[in-house]
Amino acid sequence: MASQRITDFLAANTIEGPCLVVDLDVVQDNFCAFRKALPDSAIFYAVKANPAPEILKLLASLGSNFDCASVAEIKMALATGVGPDRISYGNTVKKERDVAAAHALGVSLFAVDCVEEVEKIARSAPGARVFCRVLTDGEGAEWPLSRKFGCVPSMAIDVLTHARDLGLRATGISFHVGSQQTDTNAWDAAIGDARQVFESLEKRGITLTLVNMGGGFPTRYLKDVPTAQAYGQAIFESLKKHFGNRLPETIIEPGRGMVGDAGVIKAEVVLVSKKSDTDENRWVYLDIGKFGGLAETMDEAIRYPIRTRRDGGETAPCVLAGPTCDSADVLYEKTPYPLPIALTIGDEVLIEGTGAYTTTYSSVAFNGFEPLASYVI
Amino acid sequence: MASQRITDFLAANTIEGPCLVVDLDVVQDNFCAFRKALPDSAIFYAVKANPAPEILKLLASLGSNFDCASVAEIKMALATGVGPDRISYGNTVKKERDVAAAHALGVSLFAVDCVEEVEKIARSAPGARVFCRVLTDGEGAEWPLSRKFGCVPSMAIDVLTHARDLGLRATGISFHVGSQQTDTNAWDAAIGDARQVFESLEKRGITLTLVNMGGGFPTRYLKDVPTAQAYGQAIFESLKKHFGNRLPETIIEPGRGMVGDAGVIKAEVVLVSKKSDTDENRWVYLDIGKFGGLAETMDEAIRYPIRTRRDGGETAPCVLAGPTCDSADVLYEKTPYPLPIALTIGDEVLIEGTGAYTTTYSSVAFNGFEPLASYVI
Repeated sequence: MASQRITDFLAANTIEGPCLVVDLDVVQDNFCAFRKALPDSAIFYAVKANPAPEILKLLASLGSNFDCASVAEIKMALATGVGPDRISYGNTVKKERDVAAAHALGVSLFAVDCVEEVEKIARSAPGARVFCRVLTDGEGAEWPLSRKFGCVPSMAIDVLTHARDLGLRATGISFHVGSQQTDTNAWDAAIGDARQVFESLEKRGITLTLVNMGGGFPTRYLKDVPTAQAYGQAIFESLKKHFGNRLPETIIEPGRGMVGDAGVIKAEVVLVSKKSDTDENRWVYLDIGKFGGLAETMDEAIRYPIRTRRDGGETAPCVLAGPTCDSADVLYEKTPYPLPIALTIGDEVLIEGTGAYTTTYSSVAFNGFEPLASYVI
Repeated sequence: MASQRITDFLAANTIEGPCLVVDLDVVQDNFCAFRKALPDSAIFYAVKANPAPEILKLLASLGSNFDCASVAEIKMALATGVGPDRISYGNTVKKERDVAAAHALGVSLFAVDCVEEVEKIARSAPGARVFCRVLTDGEGAEWPLSRKFGCVPSMAIDVLTHARDLGLRATGISFHVGSQQTDTNAWDAAIGDARQVFESLEKRGITLTLVNMGGGFPTRYLKDVPTAQAYGQAIFESLKKHFGNRLPETIIEPGRGMVGDAGVIKAEVVLVSKKSDTDENRWVYLDIGKFGGLAETMDEAIRYPIRTRRDGGETAPCVLAGPTCDSADVLYEKTPYPLPIALTIGDEVLIEGTGAYTTTYSSVAFNGFEPLASYVI
């Protein structure tokens, strides 16, 4: 739901074109919920979810660390005033000159998932700490991860041994259970795998200390999701189960879970029409689509709640589409979206839960449309 | 293939990061090929394919008209010095205030596909010419069109009658056979439908004069495609077949066919790795991906030719992925891409046929990465 602050902001300001409004109070509440749910874990906010300076500044002041995907994101995090010790270069795919640039900025914690990446870091960030990402199956996630990041646990053992041999500090294991993960038990198998890697490396004289549990914490779209408290409890139980009394340091990297429900996109109905007199579905065209920030509707993966001033009246299924001349710019078609029959051209719609992964996905100028505007209040 | 001019440009300039280089000589050749293949059709370049000012300027000087998707694109076209009579507002989804803005700029040709859009135009661009887009099935197209644009032919009759009744000039019919259409006969069914609409409206006292045959002309990726000449011949035969001696005015709207093969993206191999010792496929990560301009790899629809300095040696299948921390940022995985075994980190790769639908698709700053740079030579 749009917070009162967002509702008031939109009522007080006439903004031409689609825009995202993010409520910092909600971000702060989310940070506190994570802090409370996992009091012993360090929070590394996934900057890529929404790098708005106001959000980074707030999170820095609350004590957050930052998970960065690029040198540009590292610089954004440093711009808040935090030291490089509060930054992780979490992308497993890095140009060596970017590793060097991060090292020059003082960053000393890097993600890897293969020996090739370890070698880059050994050359260009000597002495740095590295954690190795292992593959998990991501079952239960709405936005499934492919095998793009990570290696199998047995390979992680060799990767971290190689890191130690090259003078790096082999520090730990990371995993990612899949974005928008709604099964609180999803972390258990991965934590078990981590424990196995810890044991195997211990035998080689390498003592790991860190488990980076990644992100995956969901935001509430149309379906209810477990609370941060429920995640925290499940994760803590798994850590105890697998590590006993020798609990490792832990990191979590919420992105969507930190900012997703803090943002609302205001958009406009550009056209409501039918393709034939007998068409069952109306087509509703908005002034924002897949290339204006709603990339996560790809394959209809994420289904955002949509509010209109006509809510409460009778609804009918609609195909929902964006404003560009691209036929792929359709948001929901396979599963049409029920919207009020009274909805009409010029109506404002609020697309909720859009604080994460919208502004930066937005295309530069596809069809001549401006990137998504953003207001952080 | 990269033209000699592009090869020379890349050899002479050290460019950091991925970039697109477009050769204007190839664009000119393509324009001339369309001109020769369909000498009686007006060419309306689809600006959305690549709105680089140098391309628009060249095409304006060659006599091209412009198919625009937004007011911003209309302004880009006007900036070349052409008059508004050479511009079509081809998006069937328009805010009424954008219709008014286009009208104020002198544009008088608009696409519609429903009575609702006709009413906007009647109010905000009185007296304008409108053509109605009809649905085709797009069979044979590599980038299939959904039903997003157009209405069934029987509805088009009502739409254009309504236009006439509201004081607009009901001018014609448009269709789009699907992007990257490789079946030269695909135009025939649509031209037949157009003829039916012409006849039905003639009975209502409305004489249509225009058939806008849209785009769909392919660029050569990995497979051979028919020549412009072959398209021209097939289309001309269909026009004669359906319209006899009363040939209508015709418009074509090439976008991809005009600039696709004129552009090459230079990228860099950031990482080559495996996920396990027994992995059959290597993973090759580039510094450009789905969110850096290669959006048309969505569902692996468009398969670009990739050249490397290692070509000629033994190849093996690779999963090809982009540089962001997004697991959806994978270019080819279902059908792995054969690349030289010798390919290694730091190698340059050339992604060919990327002159269309790349720069503007590029995300603003996803993961902190800059939008795709572009050089037009």
